[in-house]
Amino acid sequence: MRLLVLTFTTMLFSMSIAQSNQKKYTLVIHGGAGTILKKNMSTEKEKQYLQSLDQALATGEAILKNGGTALQAVEATVKVLEDNPLFNAGKGAVFTNAGTNEMDAAIMDGATLKAGSIAGVRTIKNPIEAARLVMTQSEHVLLVGTGAEAFAKLKGCTIVDTSYFFTEDRWKGLQKAKANEADATKKEGAFIKQPNNKDDKYGTVGAVAVDVYGNLAAATSTGGMTNKRFNRVGDAPIIGAGTYADNNTCAISCTGWGEYFIRLVMAKSIADMIEYGKLTLQDAANSMVMKKLPALGGDGGLIAVDKNHNIAMPFCTEGMYRGYIKSTGEKEIKIYKE
Amino acid sequence: MRLLVLTFTTMLFSMSIAQSNQKKYTLVIHGGAGTILKKNMSTEKEKQYLQSLDQALATGEAILKNGGTALQAVEATVKVLEDNPLFNAGKGAVFTNAGTNEMDAAIMDGATLKAGSIAGVRTIKNPIEAARLVMTQSEHVLLVGTGAEAFAKLKGCTIVDTSYFFTEDRWKGLQKAKANEADATKKEGAFIKQPNNKDDKYGTVGAVAVDVYGNLAAATSTGGMTNKRFNRVGDAPIIGAGTYADNNTCAISCTGWGEYFIRLVMAKSIADMIEYGKLTLQDAANSMVMKKLPALGGDGGLIAVDKNHNIAMPFCTEGMYRGYIKSTGEKEIKIYKE
Repeated sequence: MRLLVLTFTTMLFSMSIAQSNQKKYTLVIHGGAGTILKKNMSTEKEKQYLQSLDQALATGEAILKNGGTALQAVEATVKVLEDNPLFNAGKGAVFTNAGTNEMDAAIMDGATLKAGSIAGVRTIKNPIEAARLVMTQSEHVLLVGTGAEAFAKLKGCTIVDTSYFFTEDRWKGLQKAKANEADATKKEGAFIKQPNNKDDKYGTVGAVAVDVYGNLAAATSTGGMTNKRFNRVGDAPIIGAGTYADNNTCAISCTGWGEYFIRLVMAKSIADMIEYGKLTLQDAANSMVMKKLPALGGDGGLIAVDKNHNIAMPFCTEGMYRGYIKSTGEKEIKIYKE
Repeated sequence: MRLLVLTFTTMLFSMSIAQSNQKKYTLVIHGGAGTILKKNMSTEKEKQYLQSLDQALATGEAILKNGGTALQAVEATVKVLEDNPLFNAGKGAVFTNAGTNEMDAAIMDGATLKAGSIAGVRTIKNPIEAARLVMTQSEHVLLVGTGAEAFAKLKGCTIVDTSYFFTEDRWKGLQKAKANEADATKKEGAFIKQPNNKDDKYGTVGAVAVDVYGNLAAATSTGGMTNKRFNRVGDAPIIGAGTYADNNTCAISCTGWGEYFIRLVMAKSIADMIEYGKLTLQDAANSMVMKKLPALGGDGGLIAVDKNHNIAMPFCTEGMYRGYIKSTGEKEIKIYKE
C-alpha cells in the first residue's frame, strides 16, 4: 500500500513536472551594445527603444506561447528588429565606406546543430530569413555576397532595391565617421577609432530562446560597422563566434567589436566552459565578456539562455538594449548599466 | 655546501631545459582528406604527392630550424602547397559551378590570438599571404570577395588573371561533377552526392607548427568544393572551425566536408576539450573527428599540434595527405590509412 501511494505520488509529481516543462519557455533579445548613456538619450528616443524591444519580445512570445519552436520565435523576433530603423540590421543597417549597406545574419538550431549564415548581402529585405533558408533549404552553412542574394531570390525571399536601406540617421553616421577618420590625430584608414560613433558600431540585433519542447535556438542580424571597407565581415554570421545554439548547453547571440568575438570564438567558448568546464552559464558568460574580451582590447555584450532557462546578458560597454520574457510572466527590458 | 651543489645542479638542469626548448620545433602539414585509395593511385602520382609533401615540410622546417616563427613557417609551407597544382588551393583550386575558382584561406597566431581570413577570392595568387596581411596590416579578421582582393592588391600581394588557376584536371573534375548532378537518381541541385569525386572535394591544404620560442600557429587554404554555388564558403577561413591556434592549447588545420566542421566549431572544440575538459590532444581530436563528425553525417580530417609538441592527425575518410617533422629528426609522410 505504501509503495502504491508512493508510486501514485511520484506519478503526479512527474506529470506536474512534464506539464510545467511543456509550457515553459524563455526568450531573450538584444538590440546592440555600445556607448549608450542616459545623459545622451532623449526621453522620446528612449521610449521608442523600449517600445520596440517590447514589440519584439511580444512577437516571439506569442509564437512560443502557442507551441511554436524556438527557431520560429528567434527568426520572427529578429525580423521585427530588422524592420525597425532604430537598430543596425535590415532597415537601419549602417553604411559602408562606399555608401552601401552590407548585411550579415546567422541562425542556429540547438536540436540538430544545423545552421545557416549569409554575409555581405545588399538587397535582401530580411537577412535572417535568408539565413534560415540557407539552413533549411541548402546543403550549406555560409553563403556570401551576390551568390547569397541569388540563393535568397531563388527561395522566395523579398528582394528590395538598395535604396530601401537608406536612413538619414545612418547616412549622417557615415559622414561623421568619415570626418573623424580625416582627423589626422586618428589612425589613418581606421574606422574603429570613433569614440563618438560607438553606438552606431554595435547596433547588431539578436534573439535566443528555449521553447516548450526544450529546444534552443539563436539568431543574429547586423549591418556591421559604420564606414567598413573591403567587404569586411564581423562575428554575427560566424557560427561559434557571434551566434551559437546547442540543446546540451546554451544559445547565444553576440553584439560588439566583431573582430574580437571571432578571435575568441566567443559563443562556442561559453558553451564549452559549460560542457567541459562545468561552469554555470552566468559564470562562463561573465568570464568571457567581462574578463577575456576586455583583456584582448575588445568590447561588447551578448545574450544567452541555457537548457534550464537560466539567462545571462553581460556587457562591458556603457549600455546594451536588451530584454527577456519567461513563461512565468517574468519580464525585463533595459538599456543602461545598473 | 650541499645547498650550493643543489643550486648549481638545478641551474645546469634549467639551462639544459631552456636549451632543448630553444631548439625544439614541430611542423605538421596536410594536403586534404578524402577517398584516397592505393588501388586508385598510380605509382607516378603517389610519388609526386610524397615529393610535394616532402618539399612543403622542408620549406617550413628550414624556417623553424633557423629561428623563424611558427607563423612564418606555416605561411611559407602553405604557400608551397598553394603553388602546387596537385592540391586544391591556389594553383590547383577546384572550379565552382560557374566555372570560376573561389578560394578561402586563414591564418592564426597562437601567441596573440590574432587572425586573418579571406573568402571567395578569385585573383590572389597566394590566398594565405593575403590572409596574413589581413591579420597583420588591417584591423579586421575576415574580408570577402572583391573587397578582399582590393585589400590584397593594396598591400602588394601578387594579383593574377583568373586564367592562372585553370588546370585540366580540375576542369575535368567539374565536368564529372556536373554529369553526376544531371543523373536523376541523385539529389537535384546537390553537389555533395558525388561519391566519385570525393578526393577533389577535400583537397584543402594546411600547416600547424610550434616554433623554438614555444609559439603556435595554424594556416589553411582551399579552393573549396568542386561545383560549389552561390558563393558558398566552407570552414577553412572560419576561425575556430577550420583554423585555430592558441599557445595555451593547440594549433589546428582541418580538411573535410566544411559545413560539418563549421557546425561543430571543430578546431575550437578540440582546444576547449584540452583547456576545460583536461583531455589530451589525441583524445580530444579523436573524439571530434572519429565520433562527433561522423555521428552528424560529415567526414574529413585534421592536423594538430599542442604546446608540448604532441601531434594528432586523425581522419575518418579513406586517406589524408599528411606529414610531420620534428627538431628531433623524427619525420613521417603518409597518404593512406594504416
